[in-house]
Amino acid sequence: MKAIILADPSDKTSLTLAEVPTPTPAPGEALVKVCAAGVNRGDLLQAAGHYPPPPGASEIMGLECAGIITDPGTTKFSQGDRVACLLAGGGYAEYVAVPEGQLMPLPEGYSFAEAASIVEVACTVWSNLVMLAGLHEGQTLLIHGGAGGIGTFAIQLAKALGCTVAVTAGSAEKLEACRRLGADILINYREDDFAEVMKNKADVILDIIGAKYLDANIRALAMDGHLVIIGLQGGIKGELNIARLLSKRGSISATALRARDLEDKARIVADTVEHVWPLLAAGTVTHQIHATFPLSDAASAHAALASGEVTGKVILAVAES
Amino acid sequence: MKAIILADPSDKTSLTLAEVPTPTPAPGEALVKVCAAGVNRGDLLQAAGHYPPPPGASEIMGLECAGIITDPGTTKFSQGDRVACLLAGGGYAEYVAVPEGQLMPLPEGYSFAEAASIVEVACTVWSNLVMLAGLHEGQTLLIHGGAGGIGTFAIQLAKALGCTVAVTAGSAEKLEACRRLGADILINYREDDFAEVMKNKADVILDIIGAKYLDANIRALAMDGHLVIIGLQGGIKGELNIARLLSKRGSISATALRARDLEDKARIVADTVEHVWPLLAAGTVTHQIHATFPLSDAASAHAALASGEVTGKVILAVAES
Repeated sequence: MKAIILADPSDKTSLTLAEVPTPTPAPGEALVKVCAAGVNRGDLLQAAGHYPPPPGASEIMGLECAGIITDPGTTKFSQGDRVACLLAGGGYAEYVAVPEGQLMPLPEGYSFAEAASIVEVACTVWSNLVMLAGLHEGQTLLIHGGAGGIGTFAIQLAKALGCTVAVTAGSAEKLEACRRLGADILINYREDDFAEVMKNKADVILDIIGAKYLDANIRALAMDGHLVIIGLQGGIKGELNIARLLSKRGSISATALRARDLEDKARIVADTVEHVWPLLAAGTVTHQIHATFPLSDAASAHAALASGEVTGKVILAVAES
Repeated sequence: MKAIILADPSDKTSLTLAEVPTPTPAPGEALVKVCAAGVNRGDLLQAAGHYPPPPGASEIMGLECAGIITDPGTTKFSQGDRVACLLAGGGYAEYVAVPEGQLMPLPEGYSFAEAASIVEVACTVWSNLVMLAGLHEGQTLLIHGGAGGIGTFAIQLAKALGCTVAVTAGSAEKLEACRRLGADILINYREDDFAEVMKNKADVILDIIGAKYLDANIRALAMDGHLVIIGLQGGIKGELNIARLLSKRGSISATALRARDLEDKARIVADTVEHVWPLLAAGTVTHQIHATFPLSDAASAHAALASGEVTGKVILAVAES
């Protein structure tokens, strides 16, 4: 089969379509013909050598896709089933082997590209905001990077839950995009201090920045607030004022989806399909595709996401459905 | 009535018995004649001017007591009921007004002094280890200060839950006391690096140190581990390595009981009585009274707790039962 490899492992832009062995599904896995794959920041990190696949996972990039089952193996699925897939790797390819617990039906009315665009964000946002932080109606959520793939999804999901949503972004255009999706409080981080605007107000914070925002995030937390860190774009080490955290009875969690074990992923996938798929089918939460590139031009897809000028997801089209 | 006041507010050792107004119970409160009161580190901090009572609470020290209801007010309790009480303040006195949700029956077979010795620790340990961190059978708990009031209780409770228990303490004598209570892994922090001994092993950590142990605690956390900070004896600001926390999908919470609202306290008290009182009645978890002083000698009680040489709780005897 064809798949994207790094022609020069030391050059993160050398993404090249090459002939590689088609994967053999292990027991409990199905073989899926990939129609579309999502591009994530984790793929950019992997290309740069900073985010190796967990043990046992494919060495190929690609953390989500949608396609057609060609060999269901021992799973409950059937040949020809159209599925969305949460992957530990392997999506940038014509075929991928997927554990049963990470196979989902397509959301009703969704194309392969649309489905591939929401797997990682839906599982990430649902598992962190609701399963971990317990976000619920009447609470206030602060989202950093509101215009990104995670952010645009989180805004809509939190509004669907009945929350007040604050976002940070770096331009008026991005903030306007957030507003259109339902965000209530728009903060341009180049002009305003989000810690001041949101002081003691955020019940939950979804953060992709890490160290640079750590102290400001604690200032923004409300009583019993929960800071959930899912990215480290602003560095890894920061000073934590534990007395301030304690004065709010606050919690900090730092999480990632990729290295979770199969059971954990299956639990998250099942809960996400149960609660988020109906919102997708109803259009309450919509997909946000920024651009689609052919698999052979994965390099341009990575460049687009790396530019920071993306509102929504970048997709690789792999096969015609 | 008589109560302990600071004769010289600038001198934390000037604890003196004085005549003060007897409190008037507000609606939903009962008046309790105090028979015994527990001494907590929070009282030491309050005497030193660092831990003011929350708004509306008594200015008098004392976060827990046991005694007899003299005026049940509108509560479901009756005059003459023997009760243990979780307090936001006011225990170092002959009478205290207590919200209904913070009144508990005495554990079966317990004296007033014994009951007064376990209210704060039972509610603190249960709410943090089980209600917050979800500690359960088969997990490993690391307790810092294993020989203190919190530590001795946490060891026994965690063993009752079926956990492996590791403790740190500063002397062989204290570690031996922990071992007798059931601790499995004994770490003398003056000789050994607990982060090395417990590296990646602790599902839950109960910490009273704060900043000084922050990085080492993150090193000790297991996958999906939860660090719960309930004291800041080792400082308030520390460097947090968020990447390390993320690699373990770890969580950090910092909590305190005193400033919680009435509803929250009532929820914690009810859950603690339901789950911990039977363990006390059965003797599975025992009280640990280190010394008892008369109320008039609260200064000596504070000096004893401040010395760091205490194994278990310090109690003030207020009235004969």
